[in-house]
Amino acid sequence: MPSCCGENIKVSIFGQSHSEAIGVVVDGLPAGKRIDLDELAAFLGRRAPGKNEYSTARKEADMPEILSGLIDGHTCGAPLAAIIRNTNQRSGDYDKLKNTPRPGHADFTAQVKYHGAQDARGGGHFSGRLTAPLCIAGGICIQLLAGAGIEVGAHIASIANVPDEPFDPVKVDKALMDKVKSAAFPTVSETAGAAMREAIAAARAEGDSVGGVIECAVVGLPVGVGDAMFGGLEGRMAQILFGVPAVKGLEFGAGFAAANMRGSENNDPFVYENGEIRTAGNNHGGILGGISSGMPVIFRAAIKPTPSIGREQDSVDINTGTAVKLDIGGRHDPCIVPRAVPCIEAAAAIAVYDAYIDYIKEN
Amino acid sequence: MPSCCGENIKVSIFGQSHSEAIGVVVDGLPAGKRIDLDELAAFLGRRAPGKNEYSTARKEADMPEILSGLIDGHTCGAPLAAIIRNTNQRSGDYDKLKNTPRPGHADFTAQVKYHGAQDARGGGHFSGRLTAPLCIAGGICIQLLAGAGIEVGAHIASIANVPDEPFDPVKVDKALMDKVKSAAFPTVSETAGAAMREAIAAARAEGDSVGGVIECAVVGLPVGVGDAMFGGLEGRMAQILFGVPAVKGLEFGAGFAAANMRGSENNDPFVYENGEIRTAGNNHGGILGGISSGMPVIFRAAIKPTPSIGREQDSVDINTGTAVKLDIGGRHDPCIVPRAVPCIEAAAAIAVYDAYIDYIKEN
Amino acid sequence: MPSCCGENIKVSIFGQSHSEAIGVVVDGLPAGKRIDLDELAAFLGRRAPGKNEYSTARKEADMPEILSGLIDGHTCGAPLAAIIRNTNQRSGDYDKLKNTPRPGHADFTAQVKYHGAQDARGGGHFSGRLTAPLCIAGGICIQLLAGAGIEVGAHIASIANVPDEPFDPVKVDKALMDKVKSAAFPTVSETAGAAMREAIAAARAEGDSVGGVIECAVVGLPVGVGDAMFGGLEGRMAQILFGVPAVKGLEFGAGFAAANMRGSENNDPFVYENGEIRTAGNNHGGILGGISSGMPVIFRAAIKPTPSIGREQDSVDINTGTAVKLDIGGRHDPCIVPRAVPCIEAAAAIAVYDAYIDYIKEN
Amino acid sequence: MPSCCGENIKVSIFGQSHSEAIGVVVDGLPAGKRIDLDELAAFLGRRAPGKNEYSTARKEADMPEILSGLIDGHTCGAPLAAIIRNTNQRSGDYDKLKNTPRPGHADFTAQVKYHGAQDARGGGHFSGRLTAPLCIAGGICIQLLAGAGIEVGAHIASIANVPDEPFDPVKVDKALMDKVKSAAFPTVSETAGAAMREAIAAARAEGDSVGGVIECAVVGLPVGVGDAMFGGLEGRMAQILFGVPAVKGLEFGAGFAAANMRGSENNDPFVYENGEIRTAGNNHGGILGGISSGMPVIFRAAIKPTPSIGREQDSVDINTGTAVKLDIGGRHDPCIVPRAVPCIEAAAAIAVYDAYIDYIKEN
Repeated sequence: MPSCCGENIKVSIFGQSHSEAIGVVVDGLPAGKRIDLDELAAFLGRRAPGKNEYSTARKEADMPEILSGLIDGHTCGAPLAAIIRNTNQRSGDYDKLKNTPRPGHADFTAQVKYHGAQDARGGGHFSGRLTAPLCIAGGICIQLLAGAGIEVGAHIASIANVPDEPFDPVKVDKALMDKVKSAAFPTVSETAGAAMREAIAAARAEGDSVGGVIECAVVGLPVGVGDAMFGGLEGRMAQILFGVPAVKGLEFGAGFAAANMRGSENNDPFVYENGEIRTAGNNHGGILGGISSGMPVIFRAAIKPTPSIGREQDSVDINTGTAVKLDIGGRHDPCIVPRAVPCIEAAAAIAVYDAYIDYIKEN
Repeated sequence: MPSCCGENIKVSIFGQSHSEAIGVVVDGLPAGKRIDLDELAAFLGRRAPGKNEYSTARKEADMPEILSGLIDGHTCGAPLAAIIRNTNQRSGDYDKLKNTPRPGHADFTAQVKYHGAQDARGGGHFSGRLTAPLCIAGGICIQLLAGAGIEVGAHIASIANVPDEPFDPVKVDKALMDKVKSAAFPTVSETAGAAMREAIAAARAEGDSVGGVIECAVVGLPVGVGDAMFGGLEGRMAQILFGVPAVKGLEFGAGFAAANMRGSENNDPFVYENGEIRTAGNNHGGILGGISSGMPVIFRAAIKPTPSIGREQDSVDINTGTAVKLDIGGRHDPCIVPRAVPCIEAAAAIAVYDAYIDYIKEN
Repeated sequence: MPSCCGENIKVSIFGQSHSEAIGVVVDGLPAGKRIDLDELAAFLGRRAPGKNEYSTARKEADMPEILSGLIDGHTCGAPLAAIIRNTNQRSGDYDKLKNTPRPGHADFTAQVKYHGAQDARGGGHFSGRLTAPLCIAGGICIQLLAGAGIEVGAHIASIANVPDEPFDPVKVDKALMDKVKSAAFPTVSETAGAAMREAIAAARAEGDSVGGVIECAVVGLPVGVGDAMFGGLEGRMAQILFGVPAVKGLEFGAGFAAANMRGSENNDPFVYENGEIRTAGNNHGGILGGISSGMPVIFRAAIKPTPSIGREQDSVDINTGTAVKLDIGGRHDPCIVPRAVPCIEAAAAIAVYDAYIDYIKEN
Repeated sequence: MPSCCGENIKVSIFGQSHSEAIGVVVDGLPAGKRIDLDELAAFLGRRAPGKNEYSTARKEADMPEILSGLIDGHTCGAPLAAIIRNTNQRSGDYDKLKNTPRPGHADFTAQVKYHGAQDARGGGHFSGRLTAPLCIAGGICIQLLAGAGIEVGAHIASIANVPDEPFDPVKVDKALMDKVKSAAFPTVSETAGAAMREAIAAARAEGDSVGGVIECAVVGLPVGVGDAMFGGLEGRMAQILFGVPAVKGLEFGAGFAAANMRGSENNDPFVYENGEIRTAGNNHGGILGGISSGMPVIFRAAIKPTPSIGREQDSVDINTGTAVKLDIGGRHDPCIVPRAVPCIEAAAAIAVYDAYIDYIKEN
């Protein structure tokens, strides 16, 4: 179903960029779990726009209103529903786009798919704004995972070819992970972060945008989460992660680099350390046969550059086929990668928590 | 559900490497569609082992027996079930692996997950052999897609760092695609193919293995297949593609390369050609907002090197933690990439056909 | 998933009797369909409480606010979300129930299931109030079905043993169906309706309640809607209909009476009339092998008497096991059957429309 | 999906009456559980035809071949697949039915739905024979439930208006349940059973058939199995139970009789007995708010009379509309109710076990 995900929990996301509200329903949460709404607000704050120079100047009031599912701050067994009102609806900016699809956006495909009935304002249901309810659901899953000793954290692995230092895949430093998550610009290396910000500023100055790669780790998963074949962790995570707009690639562990290794190099030998079986390396990204190995789950997501740019672009009038020089106008993120970091964490957390529920019932 | 996939059709795969049989049930197929069993056999033949020097010497009788769902070669509305008997069951080869997990395999994670009850013979349900029933289901979907003018074809994009020529993403040459699919070693460039075979032979000589990348195209999809968010083509395809063993990465269109582009470079301008709206480039890989754009869907899957290698490897005894020098023995594929090509096509075809059914009901 | 239903459309219901709001998300609706909000309001008005003497005196503002999914009154392809604020929250009435479960209610089972964390106010998520969002989803499906010439209508078949005249199962009179649906007390026979109202008044006078049976017809379905086995119309309808609180039985066509017939009596002979194949009788209730036969789909749902009654009842203190004489207090419907009529229509419409989408893609 | 059911386990049934084989795949079973194949065979024997005078004279070899999922008699985490070969394929009997649908059968609806491509031999996928794989899946679930102290047992509540003694809904006698299950003709009262057999013989003598009602109990369920709304036990059970051919009605607890009760009569008071909270009566059938109350789950299923009868019936030629006098021929069960008893147990067990898995993960 388009905007639903999960097998054990069911996350249903709704709303358009300019509808009355956007929101999410999460069905199937365990009862009696405390949800820290301040922590959730802080998590949502990490994806909120308008907080600094490298982000869009639009201001959103993204604090959700919880409509149901919580009693005294605890889940009560009923579906949790939350909405965020849409207040900043400058539709005028988007009027010209109705018949002139923006390159790199869903305007054209949605127009054809929905026979012209789609909500073209601000990208409608395809707007990056819909990652806010995703982050509500994901933020809740992150808290539930944390209660089981499982932590999810991501950083910017690169922007515009500027690389950050990677997490240590064999032993992700939790303190580092926490520090990165609380940073305004989530990189491991501050130097790399500064260089990335320069690259973003340069793109902005030219009315252009840049993309990047996000690396995410899930630490503390016991051995045995995930399933064979289509129930494998990679596939379950991928299905939700590709639901984050602009994700165009995904790799686990060594990923595409593994394709160029020898088996003797890529295979991670098993070792016995401190009373548990581990692997010496982590090219497998914490997943063997779709099932968590107890090593950190490590993956990277490729984020394409923001398709909304200040430059004139070539498009066509959908009805006539006439070539059109398109100037989108408005104010746009020259780089959504920093704001996408919590979205990637959220999507991963939903998938991992969903799989973790299977694990609980098996143990 | 671990070994089921699909929303409109439901593919359920069963069997272990050494169980009585492996097989598949496909529920939800349209009635009255002709399935060409010779064509299906030819498709399965492309993944069959033992056919030449770069493949395992084991011989499998992989022709499926159709148990139900077909009348006079046509689907009848009832679930289609097919099995392949397991005949080549040299369990002796695998006895030593019971308590000594092979690096890079699911032995360890399955052992823990299933509390020691799993079928350790030949990798059990995690064996690459299970791609045979996947190819039965996928081969059927490929025929059904072909009936709608949609073609799925893949080639080896690289093995051991040796690159093939890519498909032209803007206009995939169907004749080329057909030629590659019928080749014993599916590359666009024969020179590249020869170099890859040398690399494989070199790895084999050293008791080692190599991985590679497979590029796949889906040509002829109308605009409008796929859905928003989690129903997007990328996510639906990814969930099934990661069900193919050894896939560790996936990218659509420009993929990870897009992360290093500027928006002005990555955005594909719309153009009007021969009465239809197309894009000048295809960095978006034929998918915008999760929905097909009418351009070829292009993706690449990273295949890790075969984990079964002839060399001694480090492992541990699961029960005692004692370090073990593991020599797997047996005969193994030094490179599964060529055989994985039809598996990738099959997985993609299942996902695309499943999404295409949604398209039918909307139009 | 507890509060989700549907395969082609996904209906996700949320809220508790006393949460901020209740609501529903409907994902997967076709785009470009006009939804008449006045008609929807009128439909919801049929289940609203407080409108006359046989109903609860509580007043609810049950007009939904549409949050997303509609543009200019038409579906836009994005999920449709609607909420109803809870304003009449006299929690005081229910305080005593926390540890003393009401007989016939979900208080006890929910308390145990959710480990005491459930929302006990007003029945929480188990409240009959949750049929309001069900009716929103169902009311929309009713309109979409009507657009395809398919009508759903129900009447009170009996209350407290007082029978109404049944619909003619072979040819349901659409004018009659419309008349019944627009009546304040939906019976075919006004005499029967008057007798039922007397029975309700008698129960009310004694602090008691009565139940009844609702008969529902779906008229205009083409041959071929529904599927074999678990995809059969009966099963798909049943799963959703049993989601309406107080439904304890369901029968299609002759139903339980068929169990006492001979085959020669129960089998409906095929006849050819006005250019189409029909059956002479309709003991099969318009469904053969799970698939619609083109005859009216007819079913009856047994509604138990309202469990909330004015009389003192025996319960126990959950924590101590001490016997408690329970007086619920508050004002309660002595008979929910009239208000349940549109709920049954709504549940049936969701199931039938969901199955009808499969039919579209097959034809 | 037509022939799949279950949320935590996925049961996928395939085959037609006259295809090569029929069978089932059960995915998601816990690993390491012993399956007693002799017990399973005995269970399947209860539904097997041809064992005595009131059943069809056809002989089926219904012992399943397990293809995968079991190692040394224990589940191994991989999907369990089993098939039964079709050997008794006297297609000649059915040839005349191709264009002349049998009243009460799915012939007509399947013919239209599948555009003439369906397998008309012996009812194809709609044949009662498909309850054999259902019983394989259900028989396994029965064993798994038994391992958790939960027993499922049914008896013939009535045939041709001859009633059996009901189970005591407040305290189902397990010894009685076991005795009934092991009887050749499963009734509580032997006198009633004898009268039923006479009624069957009378119908047979007249070339006719009779139907009946089956009462089933699930004993030993803890409080808390099942969920709110559409996840309620009634709905989950109903969806699978209506997948058993010939089921046309279903009621839980007092069911339709509750519709004629007063609330004060129907509500089951809570009492405290032997350290646990129970109800004094069991009109609620062990389910409150969709969730098990700890009391026996009691339901009744209405089974229509076998539609295949020896008498001439009225039908039409599908292609021409010409009236046809249809004589089915062949040998048919004058009453399928006795053989349906284990099928009802099987369907109930699948639903209950599926819901029970949710319970495990919550506790």
